[in-house]
Amino acid sequence: MDSNKTNRREVIKALGAVPIAASIGTALLGTGVARAADSSGTATARIGLIGVGNRGTSLLKTLLALGNVTIPAVADIDAEHIARAAALIKERHGTAPALYQDGPEDFRRLVARTDLDAVILACPWDWHTPMAVAAMKAGKHVGVEVPAAQTVEECWELVRTSESTGMWCMMMENVCYFRETMQVLNMVRHGQLGELLNCAGGYQHDCRAMSFDKAGNFPVTRGSEKEPSGGGFGGGNTQLWSTWYAWKRDGNLYPTHPVGPLAQCLNIDRGDRFDYLVSVSTKARGLNKWITDHFGADHVNSKRRFALGDVNTTIIKTVNGATVTLVLDDQSPRPYDLGIRVQGTQGIYEMARDSVYIEGRSPSDKWESMEKYREEYEHPLWRKLGSQASNGGHGGADYIMLYRFVDSLIKRTAPEQDVYDAATWSVITPLTEKSVAGHGAPVEFPDFTRGKWKSRTPVQIIGA
Amino acid sequence: MDSNKTNRREVIKALGAVPIAASIGTALLGTGVARAADSSGTATARIGLIGVGNRGTSLLKTLLALGNVTIPAVADIDAEHIARAAALIKERHGTAPALYQDGPEDFRRLVARTDLDAVILACPWDWHTPMAVAAMKAGKHVGVEVPAAQTVEECWELVRTSESTGMWCMMMENVCYFRETMQVLNMVRHGQLGELLNCAGGYQHDCRAMSFDKAGNFPVTRGSEKEPSGGGFGGGNTQLWSTWYAWKRDGNLYPTHPVGPLAQCLNIDRGDRFDYLVSVSTKARGLNKWITDHFGADHVNSKRRFALGDVNTTIIKTVNGATVTLVLDDQSPRPYDLGIRVQGTQGIYEMARDSVYIEGRSPSDKWESMEKYREEYEHPLWRKLGSQASNGGHGGADYIMLYRFVDSLIKRTAPEQDVYDAATWSVITPLTEKSVAGHGAPVEFPDFTRGKWKSRTPVQIIGA
Repeated sequence: MDSNKTNRREVIKALGAVPIAASIGTALLGTGVARAADSSGTATARIGLIGVGNRGTSLLKTLLALGNVTIPAVADIDAEHIARAAALIKERHGTAPALYQDGPEDFRRLVARTDLDAVILACPWDWHTPMAVAAMKAGKHVGVEVPAAQTVEECWELVRTSESTGMWCMMMENVCYFRETMQVLNMVRHGQLGELLNCAGGYQHDCRAMSFDKAGNFPVTRGSEKEPSGGGFGGGNTQLWSTWYAWKRDGNLYPTHPVGPLAQCLNIDRGDRFDYLVSVSTKARGLNKWITDHFGADHVNSKRRFALGDVNTTIIKTVNGATVTLVLDDQSPRPYDLGIRVQGTQGIYEMARDSVYIEGRSPSDKWESMEKYREEYEHPLWRKLGSQASNGGHGGADYIMLYRFVDSLIKRTAPEQDVYDAATWSVITPLTEKSVAGHGAPVEFPDFTRGKWKSRTPVQIIGA
Repeated sequence: MDSNKTNRREVIKALGAVPIAASIGTALLGTGVARAADSSGTATARIGLIGVGNRGTSLLKTLLALGNVTIPAVADIDAEHIARAAALIKERHGTAPALYQDGPEDFRRLVARTDLDAVILACPWDWHTPMAVAAMKAGKHVGVEVPAAQTVEECWELVRTSESTGMWCMMMENVCYFRETMQVLNMVRHGQLGELLNCAGGYQHDCRAMSFDKAGNFPVTRGSEKEPSGGGFGGGNTQLWSTWYAWKRDGNLYPTHPVGPLAQCLNIDRGDRFDYLVSVSTKARGLNKWITDHFGADHVNSKRRFALGDVNTTIIKTVNGATVTLVLDDQSPRPYDLGIRVQGTQGIYEMARDSVYIEGRSPSDKWESMEKYREEYEHPLWRKLGSQASNGGHGGADYIMLYRFVDSLIKRTAPEQDVYDAATWSVITPLTEKSVAGHGAPVEFPDFTRGKWKSRTPVQIIGA
């Protein structure tokens, strides 16, 4: 979607599409959120941060690099983290932010402020929905780390709150902004892969070393504020708090990285819809083995029964007859790989090879590098922002993602990732959990759009 | 398993394993099958061929190259094919074989001959089980092309017949003999990948051009003897007859290529067992599109409703908690790729990268080429036979496979692929068909071993 407001109606008409505003209730335009202008008169977005641990700090640095952002307020329960964030902001803007560090509920005072357009949440998973809901109810747009919700009911709560408040809720799925995935989306939109059949991807990332502290422990209380290692509300510099989920839940606990870009290619909730899924996990060996290898067989976590199978595999069927294969493989030894694959009736993309095959263009039976098609199909956002983005996190994807977030605030439009994406991508976790428990029995997706998926506009190739 | 009979008991003892003979009834040793000696006094295997189309002729050439084989008899309904085979045999051995070409049932006279140790079958799928059963009942060991059976009942029929006759039935799954897959098996047996968690693979091969004749047609009668293109009983030089299955059945119609080597790595029916599977297919577009692109939208096959979804994805769970992910993707544009992957608690192999990662050996987070581990883990059969094998079909795998087939006949042992493998790997087709029809509902595997899977010996690293 071209975000130039002046031409917005014309663009929508040309696309033959339903205006986005109609598709998300009143969430998009004219919400009455105030915008500030900095001393130079340039419009800026006023963003509050909740959670400035490892991930939150990385997002903060990228926001500061964008230039058209002010950060009036920060919340975290960890004194070190919040001090670090305050120093970064003061260094950049000359003014220290207001700090909210009086326990885990103090974020509520932050979202109640009247000088914020939006808040960004980078906290342990259980906090995502409660914080997002509180922020939207307080009239703030939301950028929330992945996954946005942990249960089916939380997903509905996000949807209902966004619809009733008119605030948008962007789950910040940064893989949608990778250079490769954006080029793939562009190629898909140009018909290079034909009608899509099967898409695949996985979160395949050996996270064992991040799962335990230096003594081989993790917090055994769900949603614990303090980690044994001294990490805090923002996740600290580790993700120790996430090990609780591996202890208690079996399914695909981290589906959004691969499913995000695939759902965009497939027009999920925008012409197609996830219908049902089946999910099967392997046995759980990785975390026990890691502890045994590093701390010996007598360590309590050497024998602890972790629920999460080491490799979860899920197949999603869409109403229009495509499939999506998802893998979670995050406690086995292996190089990092999102393993994204898009097979259509005209060709195929494979991330592992960084290659495509396009019938009629590629030599018969031969892969061709994505580089070969870069000039033709580089995404416009990468064309414009690539050089400055590549200093940011995740190869520049965070920069592009936050650029879109901030640009949407300033232009009073909405980012392409909305609350329905947040709900549909996040709900995979509880649905796979149910399927795994049922020996792979199929589980239906809720239709969070309540029928609007049939007419909502697909994600377009956004100009910069 | 070392196939040297003299040392057989010692080897078995050293491996701490149950003797194979006990695990397959009376099938292995001393079946009383005669063996001939050629004029030089060397023992030879006497093999009858049924089906000498494209695949059968390729197998014939490899058999002749092996040297310790005689081919006293050949059956095919196609005059050209059988003449071609006869000429090849006469050229090599100086004597023409007996020919059986009097219609599709004439193979029964071939299997009744008393001068054959075994027969090899390379015919359209529906003939595999009837021919294999007839051959075993006539006292011949069997080598049958993949898949060995089409239905659950056919799988049981193969098992019952092999058990009651004492004849073995080797489904000739040649991917088990690829240089890479044999190296992987060797690495698995040496513990390099640890305890296996998830294995994956696919038959990912664009077969659209082989699915129709020059007018865009295929035989619409199941098991038709004659193809529109003039291909014959042995499959002609095309596989037109297989298009019938794509028209009528939806599931994984061709699972054995990827599942064979994975099942060997996982000790399926030899310590572990396939428990259940779930299977989901995409819509069917590829064959219609191919016809439309080449013959126009008015061609009858442009609109024919093919049952087979373009991409089928299946997840199998084993009793011991591993999973196997299988893909069938044979009517979409894409380079050929079996996509085999083996993830264990200690490392991972990926065919697409021709690479492994081994914890404690590979540099952190870095793939290493299989070539690097070749010297250490090259399979003994490839070490011994690689140079002569590489002239044969499928990069030499056919040579190694038929070497094992013939060597087993001569040494009166049994090949490592037995009737339980044939049944368990082939039954995936009807089980996936049932699951797909049930929207991915889990379907249980029959236990063809009737409990013997718990004690049967895993496939060993066979010395040449």
